[in-house]
Amino acid sequence: MRQNFDVKGGPQIGRQNLPKLRAEMAKQGLSGFYVPHEDEFQNEYLPDANERLAWISGFTGSYGSAMVLAETAVLFIDGRYTIQAADQTDHDLFERVAVPDPGPFGWLAAQNLTGAIIGYDPALMTPNDVATFTAAATKAGARVKSVTENPIDLAWSERPDQPQAPVHPHAIEHAGTSSHDKRQQIAQALRADKADAAIITAPASIAWLFNIRGGDVACSPLPLARAVIRSDGSAELFLDPAKETDGLRAHLGNEVTLTPYTDLEPRLRELKGQTISLDPGLASAWFFQTLEDAGATILPQMDPVQLPKACKNAAELQGSAAAHRRDGAAITRFLHWLDTDAQSGKITEIDAAMKLESFRNELPGLQDLSFETISGAGPNGALPHYRVNSASNRLLERGSLYLVDSGGQYPDGTTDITRTVPIGTPSADMIRHYTLVLKGHIALDRVRFPEGTTGTHLDILARHALWQAGLDYDHGTGHGVGVYLGVHEGPQRIAKPWNAIPLAPGMIVSNEPGFYKEGAYGIRIENLQYVTPPEPIEGGERDMLGFECLTFAPLARGLIDTGLLSSEERDWVDDYHQRVMAEIGDLVDGEVKDWLNAACAAL
Amino acid sequence: MRQNFDVKGGPQIGRQNLPKLRAEMAKQGLSGFYVPHEDEFQNEYLPDANERLAWISGFTGSYGSAMVLAETAVLFIDGRYTIQAADQTDHDLFERVAVPDPGPFGWLAAQNLTGAIIGYDPALMTPNDVATFTAAATKAGARVKSVTENPIDLAWSERPDQPQAPVHPHAIEHAGTSSHDKRQQIAQALRADKADAAIITAPASIAWLFNIRGGDVACSPLPLARAVIRSDGSAELFLDPAKETDGLRAHLGNEVTLTPYTDLEPRLRELKGQTISLDPGLASAWFFQTLEDAGATILPQMDPVQLPKACKNAAELQGSAAAHRRDGAAITRFLHWLDTDAQSGKITEIDAAMKLESFRNELPGLQDLSFETISGAGPNGALPHYRVNSASNRLLERGSLYLVDSGGQYPDGTTDITRTVPIGTPSADMIRHYTLVLKGHIALDRVRFPEGTTGTHLDILARHALWQAGLDYDHGTGHGVGVYLGVHEGPQRIAKPWNAIPLAPGMIVSNEPGFYKEGAYGIRIENLQYVTPPEPIEGGERDMLGFECLTFAPLARGLIDTGLLSSEERDWVDDYHQRVMAEIGDLVDGEVKDWLNAACAAL
Repeated sequence: MRQNFDVKGGPQIGRQNLPKLRAEMAKQGLSGFYVPHEDEFQNEYLPDANERLAWISGFTGSYGSAMVLAETAVLFIDGRYTIQAADQTDHDLFERVAVPDPGPFGWLAAQNLTGAIIGYDPALMTPNDVATFTAAATKAGARVKSVTENPIDLAWSERPDQPQAPVHPHAIEHAGTSSHDKRQQIAQALRADKADAAIITAPASIAWLFNIRGGDVACSPLPLARAVIRSDGSAELFLDPAKETDGLRAHLGNEVTLTPYTDLEPRLRELKGQTISLDPGLASAWFFQTLEDAGATILPQMDPVQLPKACKNAAELQGSAAAHRRDGAAITRFLHWLDTDAQSGKITEIDAAMKLESFRNELPGLQDLSFETISGAGPNGALPHYRVNSASNRLLERGSLYLVDSGGQYPDGTTDITRTVPIGTPSADMIRHYTLVLKGHIALDRVRFPEGTTGTHLDILARHALWQAGLDYDHGTGHGVGVYLGVHEGPQRIAKPWNAIPLAPGMIVSNEPGFYKEGAYGIRIENLQYVTPPEPIEGGERDMLGFECLTFAPLARGLIDTGLLSSEERDWVDDYHQRVMAEIGDLVDGEVKDWLNAACAAL
Repeated sequence: MRQNFDVKGGPQIGRQNLPKLRAEMAKQGLSGFYVPHEDEFQNEYLPDANERLAWISGFTGSYGSAMVLAETAVLFIDGRYTIQAADQTDHDLFERVAVPDPGPFGWLAAQNLTGAIIGYDPALMTPNDVATFTAAATKAGARVKSVTENPIDLAWSERPDQPQAPVHPHAIEHAGTSSHDKRQQIAQALRADKADAAIITAPASIAWLFNIRGGDVACSPLPLARAVIRSDGSAELFLDPAKETDGLRAHLGNEVTLTPYTDLEPRLRELKGQTISLDPGLASAWFFQTLEDAGATILPQMDPVQLPKACKNAAELQGSAAAHRRDGAAITRFLHWLDTDAQSGKITEIDAAMKLESFRNELPGLQDLSFETISGAGPNGALPHYRVNSASNRLLERGSLYLVDSGGQYPDGTTDITRTVPIGTPSADMIRHYTLVLKGHIALDRVRFPEGTTGTHLDILARHALWQAGLDYDHGTGHGVGVYLGVHEGPQRIAKPWNAIPLAPGMIVSNEPGFYKEGAYGIRIENLQYVTPPEPIEGGERDMLGFECLTFAPLARGLIDTGLLSSEERDWVDDYHQRVMAEIGDLVDGEVKDWLNAACAAL
């Protein structure tokens, strides 16, 4: 199996390691140290070697940070992780404080730490974060100190090695555009900005730019590497030689120099007098400091790869659609199983997650899951980022809802789908809540919108029906998705917090409104969809963009109250199910096909 | 009449005055000078003495700026003023460039002005603007120079005097809260922020804080004044002594010192060592520079009066509702007249604007119009900020639409209403477009939303029906409105550009979607509504805010296609018209009442 369901983290880890960190801090003359979750690559999924926050605390969530002082330590977590953080940390060692209000830096500013020296690792923080952190420390009467060696890394005696997964070419049939053409496009943008080069620090940007894939972190085929691209389109790729595979150099061609990762710093120091594009939202303060020390002029702007990577070309959209069809067939087999065998009340969350993985494993080309499957029965479904383990494992009981959020990585695309399924007979509330979530999903699927519209403008469409009923959900509505890359990617996002990036043709986003009844059940409906180009509307004056759906698998008709749907919404459900039959129908047979036919019948 | 319809501005003004400015620039050694529309008080409606942009160019729009160089000059205007600016300026003297892309500073950055010295008046620009302006000039190879005497003011030989309208107390029955209590509230916030005092630079903030009203600018009862409020609640009000009226000192009480305006600068210079709250979005760079020179510590934050002023108390909401009822009766008489006499096809836009003013003049307590009436027949209605003058005046022709946007200032409230009325028989397109606009208006009236929601989140509700039909409008959806204060006020706003201020109980906003068929007709439906407190919804889990309508006057039933409305939307129209009868019915009689009854009958 690709998944395990071990209990991770726990208070004993913090009890064991926090004193070791404090000993190192003392050696470096630090009375405090700031520990973000992020690593040197701003990864979402960290290699084991970079799980520093988990190592000092025992907390294994994907988001958080800690401020370690000589006598006290505070763990900053958000609402998703309140329960998990309480379970995984020693309450005598760690106070737990909710972000974003006031957040780690707001908390710091309110302390009285006269004379304290608080260390930070500039390789793990963006320059904006360092500035806010510094101002907060000053307010508290302390001063900050940039460390050259992270005291955690020094204290961590049995730290795992950095990953060295092989890096392979990504086939042009899936990429659609050659690395040469991509580099020429970026180079043109650099020349327009009068920049000599850009430093590309994000592994996903590097994978896209050079048409390569690696495997250094779980669930994403990312090579941990860095690159410099120059305004003539030539580039230098900094990569651990152990990751080089046969044919990689030939694939990269003679415009790209392959350089050992250890040469990165000396090469940056040679950039004196050059104007270098560097992303203050992605690159760490270490890059800014190193380039400033080298005498380069920094042009702070968005990584020039971000937008071209987000706007998928025809080959990427076609590949993604094909991957979604295959994945949808596996999901359909799983939904059939849920609607038959799993109605027994004797199936566990782990059973279900393993069953789903077994269906995906039968598919040609599965490279990995795109994230750890969220398999939540009953009240566990109400935890939006639930990960089942052997201790939390619940039965799919009759009279409950089961929520499953999962995805796969294929050479031609990345999938991410959530379905909510009744086990036994659903209650009237379950049906009402599912239908309200569905109304939001439909509104965000159907909308047409003008150029310049961002995800923040559209977010309310997915929430409006819930709001009118006095309900809401505490997560974003949609994230960007890569093509055989990260299942979460920017720069676009559909959420309440302001996102300034207009939705542009070819961007893939998720559409995943939900509702969570604490202690009872969770509901989420998620499809991926991509932005279509501006097109005229009959009787209109302005061309409007829209969305085209990628994800096809039946909805839970037993959870739909047609009385709450408008006739347009009923038509949407029927049209969607017809599309499901058209896309998936030929990929399943026998009992599953019969079941699919019934599941997709008109409401 | 309170209005005149004279042709304002024009190319001869620029031809006459631009050379005078250039002569003064030369004396000061300036090769360029930046001229914003805003004055020292960031006023929307300027006193004649501060119409500097109009004086140098002949352009009289409410938004714009100019960059005057030795040989060339550029006028920066937005889409609303394309036609007006072309009419009012000499094309040999002024190039016209659309903002915001690239905007005056973006334009400046792209020039080659090596060695040029570009002057600016720090009293007319915020510090953020000065920073952007300076960076742009540097990119162009120029440098900037802060002037101590504005060369326009020196060149303007027949400049009108600064206004000296008397300042009166604003009755507590309308204000609801005493100045003492308001000052204590602000003082508490200052203490929480560890500030010694705040400089209040905005006339509307001063009027609210001290419960006073003046008349220094058209359409708003604003006193041009400044104030310092200290963290103990005491304050100093800087006011031209000529504006002082009997009883003003007694009204202000002994916690408020009344000081001649000319003492402002020396008093600011005494603030050495103090921490002073100052709004970088409202206060000019002059204030920042003066306080820095004085040795004060500036705490850059939003004017502490802004939010309390925006969230109306019960007396203000009650007064506003009463003012809207009276105003609605005048509007109703006018709508009756439009539906009868004005159907002749022989009435002009000026006739209609004067007729509407005469109905308002009959009301007790009218102090002023809250802005110049927009009286737009046929294609003139498609200009969202149209001001009729004797040259542009059109007939309300049969087979056309007439758009009228107007409001009044009353001691208990400020009104702002737009109605669109058919003259003769409307076309099918007119009806379809009106109904789509109405659907947006209804959606924004009915919505319930959670705490934290901003106007940017809600904006799409007013546009959604139009977008689905390939239509949109190029202005915001809603602005804040004062109570016997500015008809446009912040900090909240309902519009596409990001506004970070959550809508909070008591905030008054307009709801004014529109559609503009260029060269043919304009449609806009505008009511004012205020935010209601979070309240539970049956079957829900979270309390939701909402809106309560303030504006009551019939909609144009002849322009509504009921086939395009959902049953909920039809119910909304009928409910609204029943409210109109309940609120306005008793204030009209005879033929008008009969007409109102028919206008408000169920669809």
